[in-house]
Amino acid sequence: MRSVYWENDSLKMIDQRRLPSALEIVTYHEPRAVAGAIRDMVVRGAPAIGAAAAFGLALAAGGNAFSSRDELLRGLKEAAGVLRAARPTAVNLGWALDRMLARASAAQGSVPELAQAVLAEAQGIADEDVQINKRMAEIGAALIDDGDTVIHHCNTGALATVDWGTALGVIHTACEQGKHVHVLVDETRPRLQGARLTAWELEQYHIPYEIISDNMAGHFLQTGQVQKVFFGADRVAANGDLANKIGTYMLALAACDNDVPVHAVVPTSTVDLSIQDGSQIPIEERSQDEVLGLAFQGEPIAPAGARARNPAFDITPAHLITSIVTEKGVVSPPFEIHLREALSR
Amino acid sequence: MRSVYWENDSLKMIDQRRLPSALEIVTYHEPRAVAGAIRDMVVRGAPAIGAAAAFGLALAAGGNAFSSRDELLRGLKEAAGVLRAARPTAVNLGWALDRMLARASAAQGSVPELAQAVLAEAQGIADEDVQINKRMAEIGAALIDDGDTVIHHCNTGALATVDWGTALGVIHTACEQGKHVHVLVDETRPRLQGARLTAWELEQYHIPYEIISDNMAGHFLQTGQVQKVFFGADRVAANGDLANKIGTYMLALAACDNDVPVHAVVPTSTVDLSIQDGSQIPIEERSQDEVLGLAFQGEPIAPAGARARNPAFDITPAHLITSIVTEKGVVSPPFEIHLREALSR
Repeated sequence: MRSVYWENDSLKMIDQRRLPSALEIVTYHEPRAVAGAIRDMVVRGAPAIGAAAAFGLALAAGGNAFSSRDELLRGLKEAAGVLRAARPTAVNLGWALDRMLARASAAQGSVPELAQAVLAEAQGIADEDVQINKRMAEIGAALIDDGDTVIHHCNTGALATVDWGTALGVIHTACEQGKHVHVLVDETRPRLQGARLTAWELEQYHIPYEIISDNMAGHFLQTGQVQKVFFGADRVAANGDLANKIGTYMLALAACDNDVPVHAVVPTSTVDLSIQDGSQIPIEERSQDEVLGLAFQGEPIAPAGARARNPAFDITPAHLITSIVTEKGVVSPPFEIHLREALSR
Repeated sequence: MRSVYWENDSLKMIDQRRLPSALEIVTYHEPRAVAGAIRDMVVRGAPAIGAAAAFGLALAAGGNAFSSRDELLRGLKEAAGVLRAARPTAVNLGWALDRMLARASAAQGSVPELAQAVLAEAQGIADEDVQINKRMAEIGAALIDDGDTVIHHCNTGALATVDWGTALGVIHTACEQGKHVHVLVDETRPRLQGARLTAWELEQYHIPYEIISDNMAGHFLQTGQVQKVFFGADRVAANGDLANKIGTYMLALAACDNDVPVHAVVPTSTVDLSIQDGSQIPIEERSQDEVLGLAFQGEPIAPAGARARNPAFDITPAHLITSIVTEKGVVSPPFEIHLREALSR
């Protein structure tokens, strides 16, 4: 089962806000609702929101009775603008939309034929994502040794992609190869994607894990209990700096301080060569309710009227990263040179 | 109002598990119940549990009809054993108990006179704690500049001590001196002492603050939004390595990576010269329920059957610490030399 898929002329997605309590599928018929789902994190994970946005354009193309090719293209551009504005950090969103618009512009034929081509492109993005993830997982699994304990941040599994996942896909494939891997799952405050989603996936795969608070990673690294650190990314700059879920920077820093290798696993669609370094990546700040809306032993975690900050991503500088695993191979430093090389393969 | 105090022949303490929802005072009549309160974190914070344990021995001395001095001393030793076993990491617990036992051994007179001397010693420890904190706060406030934004980890305020606090006491005094300070409050998973207790104290003091998830500290440090980092400690080794609430190590590392000064604020009773470095400090691991027992938007944060780890402290190596503020002055590196010098003043 995919986390994002097309069925009966509509987009279906797992509602990731309900997991692990309930596995619910939500159906979308028009692009504005898809943009809302991306913003509200019904769907999250850079590759998954790319695919969702692509299908959002397929809904735009198919749902309206456009009378001409130009009208259809205008409608797609407008829908792409709405979808693009949903979240700023993950480059896969813009990447998928640009690819969809280019395909639409290049397509010939009648309005229904164009709409068909747009849907086929969205389906292609989704199918490719699964293939790319499987390929990355094969490549990355070689970095994991039998008996490793790894720390994993956020969720990068089947839920964060169309299927299989990026960093969690690597761990999953290593386990399928017969390697024994123990995962320390960063709970990943504030939205707890680690505790809610990664732990749920690992339960399905029967991979042993323990949840830790994000601030515990340093202790386990410092006491020699961890051999590797794995995470995905939402955007990788040309120099290898990367934006990923908040907390990644402190995790990478602690790994580096203890000489533990740090592996980022990303499809090349997450690499943004138009951006030189991490300082240019926009960091989304989300509602303080995500930080404050917890209950601890049945009580609110903060006094009434408390304020909170909520940057959703941070920048991990390239010098803390051991390798960037892509579908084109394992990219090593200096990333300025090797990322460009990998992308041109 | 003190967080730990003696009234009507009994020990009274604020129940810190109930804040910020309710301010409740719990009354204790015998030492085993005090040990339970320390274990269950009704009272927490190294200086506060030291004072609570001292009053626990006063309860042991006063509550039993001992027929001789020797019987009383045996009773105190037994009670001290129970209290000492409540939590392993904070040295103030053992420090207060040793001081109480030494005072009892040295005291002359009848059994009631001895019991009176023991209570007076406990009261002395509590009163001194407040004086020491006020002195540390005066000394440490000089490290804060008008306009500073500081990150503060866990709770080190009036609640963590008998009154006023250690690191938070420094911030409080700086604000009373008219300096404008903005506090980024680490929520401090898993028990959320920052969000629950520090935010509650800052509300009382009208000091501006914002709560952040622990894993956000790196982002604020990296983007130049923070001028200083403050925390307390549960035990400082002779070389300046220190044990403090889990997450302190990663915070100090991120501060250091961005050349932001890191100040630990501790009474000298928290310094343990009998321990050479941090590797010898015992780290308590607590129940996984503290990590898993959260609700996010009304739902459990982890799948049924999930496991978690819960080390309650970590070790921050001395080289990440800019200064250790004590009641005997600001101690700078090399701590091996300067801590001993300060303690002998």
